[in-house]
Amino acid sequence: MPKLAVAIAQTNPIVGDLGGNRERLVEKAQEAWDQGAQVLLTGELALSGYPIEDLALRDDFLVRSREVVQYMATELEERGLGEMVVLVGHPDGPFPPPKDQYNPAHPQQAKNCVSVLQHGRIQATYAKHHLPNYSVFDEFRTFLPGEDYLILRINDIDCGVLICEDLWRDRGPVQVMSSYPLGALLVPNASPFERDKDDVRLPLVQRRAQDMGCAVFYANLVGGQDDLVFDGDSVVVDQTGSLLSRFPVFDESLQIVTIEAGSSEHRDAPERTSIVELEVADRQIEPPAPTVLPETDDLELIWRALVTGTKDYVEKNRFASVILGLSGGIDSSVCAAIAVDAIGPERVYGVSMPSQYSSEHSKTDADELAERLGIPYRVEAIAELVRPFDEQLKLTGLAAENVQARVRGVVLMSLSNLEGHLVLTTGNKSELAVGYSTIYGDSVGGYAPIKDVPKTLVWELARWRNAQAEASGETAPIPSGSIEKPPSAELRPDQTDQDSLPDYDVLDEILHLFIVEGLDHPQIVAKGFDAKTVADVLILVDVAEWKRRQGAIGPRISSVAFGRDRRLPVTARKQSVRPD
Amino acid sequence: MPKLAVAIAQTNPIVGDLGGNRERLVEKAQEAWDQGAQVLLTGELALSGYPIEDLALRDDFLVRSREVVQYMATELEERGLGEMVVLVGHPDGPFPPPKDQYNPAHPQQAKNCVSVLQHGRIQATYAKHHLPNYSVFDEFRTFLPGEDYLILRINDIDCGVLICEDLWRDRGPVQVMSSYPLGALLVPNASPFERDKDDVRLPLVQRRAQDMGCAVFYANLVGGQDDLVFDGDSVVVDQTGSLLSRFPVFDESLQIVTIEAGSSEHRDAPERTSIVELEVADRQIEPPAPTVLPETDDLELIWRALVTGTKDYVEKNRFASVILGLSGGIDSSVCAAIAVDAIGPERVYGVSMPSQYSSEHSKTDADELAERLGIPYRVEAIAELVRPFDEQLKLTGLAAENVQARVRGVVLMSLSNLEGHLVLTTGNKSELAVGYSTIYGDSVGGYAPIKDVPKTLVWELARWRNAQAEASGETAPIPSGSIEKPPSAELRPDQTDQDSLPDYDVLDEILHLFIVEGLDHPQIVAKGFDAKTVADVLILVDVAEWKRRQGAIGPRISSVAFGRDRRLPVTARKQSVRPD
Repeated sequence: MPKLAVAIAQTNPIVGDLGGNRERLVEKAQEAWDQGAQVLLTGELALSGYPIEDLALRDDFLVRSREVVQYMATELEERGLGEMVVLVGHPDGPFPPPKDQYNPAHPQQAKNCVSVLQHGRIQATYAKHHLPNYSVFDEFRTFLPGEDYLILRINDIDCGVLICEDLWRDRGPVQVMSSYPLGALLVPNASPFERDKDDVRLPLVQRRAQDMGCAVFYANLVGGQDDLVFDGDSVVVDQTGSLLSRFPVFDESLQIVTIEAGSSEHRDAPERTSIVELEVADRQIEPPAPTVLPETDDLELIWRALVTGTKDYVEKNRFASVILGLSGGIDSSVCAAIAVDAIGPERVYGVSMPSQYSSEHSKTDADELAERLGIPYRVEAIAELVRPFDEQLKLTGLAAENVQARVRGVVLMSLSNLEGHLVLTTGNKSELAVGYSTIYGDSVGGYAPIKDVPKTLVWELARWRNAQAEASGETAPIPSGSIEKPPSAELRPDQTDQDSLPDYDVLDEILHLFIVEGLDHPQIVAKGFDAKTVADVLILVDVAEWKRRQGAIGPRISSVAFGRDRRLPVTARKQSVRPD
Repeated sequence: MPKLAVAIAQTNPIVGDLGGNRERLVEKAQEAWDQGAQVLLTGELALSGYPIEDLALRDDFLVRSREVVQYMATELEERGLGEMVVLVGHPDGPFPPPKDQYNPAHPQQAKNCVSVLQHGRIQATYAKHHLPNYSVFDEFRTFLPGEDYLILRINDIDCGVLICEDLWRDRGPVQVMSSYPLGALLVPNASPFERDKDDVRLPLVQRRAQDMGCAVFYANLVGGQDDLVFDGDSVVVDQTGSLLSRFPVFDESLQIVTIEAGSSEHRDAPERTSIVELEVADRQIEPPAPTVLPETDDLELIWRALVTGTKDYVEKNRFASVILGLSGGIDSSVCAAIAVDAIGPERVYGVSMPSQYSSEHSKTDADELAERLGIPYRVEAIAELVRPFDEQLKLTGLAAENVQARVRGVVLMSLSNLEGHLVLTTGNKSELAVGYSTIYGDSVGGYAPIKDVPKTLVWELARWRNAQAEASGETAPIPSGSIEKPPSAELRPDQTDQDSLPDYDVLDEILHLFIVEGLDHPQIVAKGFDAKTVADVLILVDVAEWKRRQGAIGPRISSVAFGRDRRLPVTARKQSVRPD
């Protein structure tokens, strides 16, 4: 039976960086070739990064994308890699927008494509049919759907080509490909991390493999892109659904899987399907065995998603360092630990900004955190900065509480302006949900590492990270005082979060049912929660919409994060609690 | 020939306020009936407001919408209005999502509908076919498309029903309706204001009327909804395209137009079309003649859009008052004048916050503005608030400039917390485009009245508003000093905006070509601009994306505003200027 050595390169592109991404892909092609691959599959839009959003509406970006694909084909040929079949994802266009489907200002004119490069030429191009336009996806806004199908007959093995969402839908490409005997299915993806999503992806891939009777190569991206984090976790399964390769999560990786398949029957192509015949000589090199990594633990996956999102926001935006306020509380402690894991302690600057209401243990916990992490650290007391506001404006009550948070925001932004740091903001999902934060105060910053992490999960992660450090003989990063003490904003004497909010275990369950599960007030109450408590929480969530709209971006780990996932008006009677 | 008196009620709903909007619509129905109408047409989604965004994904919201439509039918009947045919727009659902088009977390399950109420019952419902998903629209995300067509045979006059985008597309509903001899076309719309859009809407309506040989009733909404402003401007044309009624802009209004049409031929209905027969007795009341208002002047339209957006943000969100910093410059002066026109002088609080770098004329211009507007006004010098930061943090350069703007932000937010005002932020589109503002400083606020107004248009509007006041014998609101002096942030001695930026007339043209027209660097240069200047501007726009992402919402007046119109990644090499 004919054999084919197919590599997947799981890469971390930068959106829009056509030149840089191309260089990285060509390096990966070299590596794959040197290891004996005949075919190289890469992730969805690996050349442009994903998602490109409204860049897809720009003529010049599309023209340049086309040029870079062609340039890449030439470059591969010139580097002696011309015989390898390389599948690379890129936006293609501009196409004339269909007469009756238009955007008057900036029409859709791109397709989400994968091109097949060999011998210095683009041998074929497939355009994605199913354009997801839900949750964080806006592809129907930015792309035109493909209409044709593609089968690559490589050394007499027929390989169908789909892109991401195409694989999830029963109609269209899956239907057509199922009608033809394939040796393999090659699928570039851009599937962002969500907690428990790996429980969905692999079974789908296995079911498709079994139904279609062929191996499936599922290539994902890795890396952080604004609020999305791509976890990689690319897989290859055989026609029985057995795992032949499972890739690392969150890291770039290259693996080669050799499949054997019966020679093609040379049946007629299905309707609107091109069959493109390609030959690649046997490489006479035995590729290294692919890895079949075990599934990663849930908390470790989340931690690594937060670290990857933070690292890539910093690095891709070329910040030399980050700065954050350390209150001694659990949120800032966890954010600091994430930042240190992302970019190393010497690039993470901590600032303790105690006020007259800061407890002694808060100050010592902040000191201890900085010491445990080994980060540059300073103390900037805010009393002398706050007092002139209190006196000149005669502040009392909420105004006097918030001014402390805002003065801290000014301190952090001033240090950022002086020293060039990115400011990290340390709010968690529970706080953002109910608006328990001071806008332009503790919300100040360009990136929010735990914005999609509920408070109870912040504690879990802290304990997990400490345990992990201890298990490997390292210093636990987070002081136990920060984990154990009752949470408080410390903006007035003896304040605790539970003066204003239900216990966090109750709050987080209600928030999960409302925001992620999409249940309504009676449905949540039916789960056993107090009706008044649920009503109070839902109203807080509705009212805080305007603050969230001005919030920093941060890594998404749930299936419904705040941000592009949950688009609600600010001005509205949202009626989450039914009026009587 | 049979006659039919059809009213349009152009209303200003609040998104999600099903109960309040229903009450208002029933009032309008009473008014229409009392004036002799037989049919009442209202705007798109008039019962729920538009856009409802992800509220459309919530079961409970859809269930309640259905209940309220039924309740409204009953209420009309009980109030003796049961004979009138009332068309009311609402989201309908939940429908089972189609198997192969899904949102795993929160599936689309609503349709964008108009229901026909008579005799206490829902007689028919039409669902919108064409779901716009470009520019500010996300309907493909939130709605399922309709599949059927509807003709109302009212007193033997056949009236086709379409919704908004359906009218703009040649295929589908327009095609089907064109195949049948109609007496009228009834079209609810939610068409937001854009400069020069009235030049597009009326010709379309006229062309459809001529092509289909029937009168067209085009009912729009009015009012502000977050960043959208609906301008009304509803029209009725006869089958030759002649205007029978043109409604006021930005105000609620009710007009009745009586049409005569040949009795229907009773041909077979087109495919998938319901013909619903309804009778309404002749009212024996001569309705008042409809108005045919002239087009409104461009600058007046823009001014009123800004005033309407600001007013509705304040009123719909139930703020008692607004507060803003008055620098003596043109931006804050124009924002204050807009706010006064929106909600009256006694609810607009001005604060002058001079620093050591504020010029004498700035302070006197701010004083004069407050006096001309007759608003509550105070002076809070910032020197004593800034100095502790400068000293404790040893601020210099940009950090020392920005801290002044941030201290002003803290002052405004403190006064907001003390006194309950909404803070208005006064940045213009040119500044937001190039990032010429201090985040968490002058960007502080919940609503940004001129965020879509380029600087040169701010000046034009100021002159127009003053001239308009003078022409009607009132005090010109804006001091001439604020209009004439060179713009400056006054954060260091003798600073002017043109230290950092090209002249505003050049800058605004480049920005318009890039952002609104979508031209690229070579195309803009080909219009006669200096290549280096264009490159500098485009790079500034790219880099400022993160600041805009955290910016306040404000009224959209152009076809491409910042915000939901222009969705670009923060982390990206946007390559607006092609790398060498």
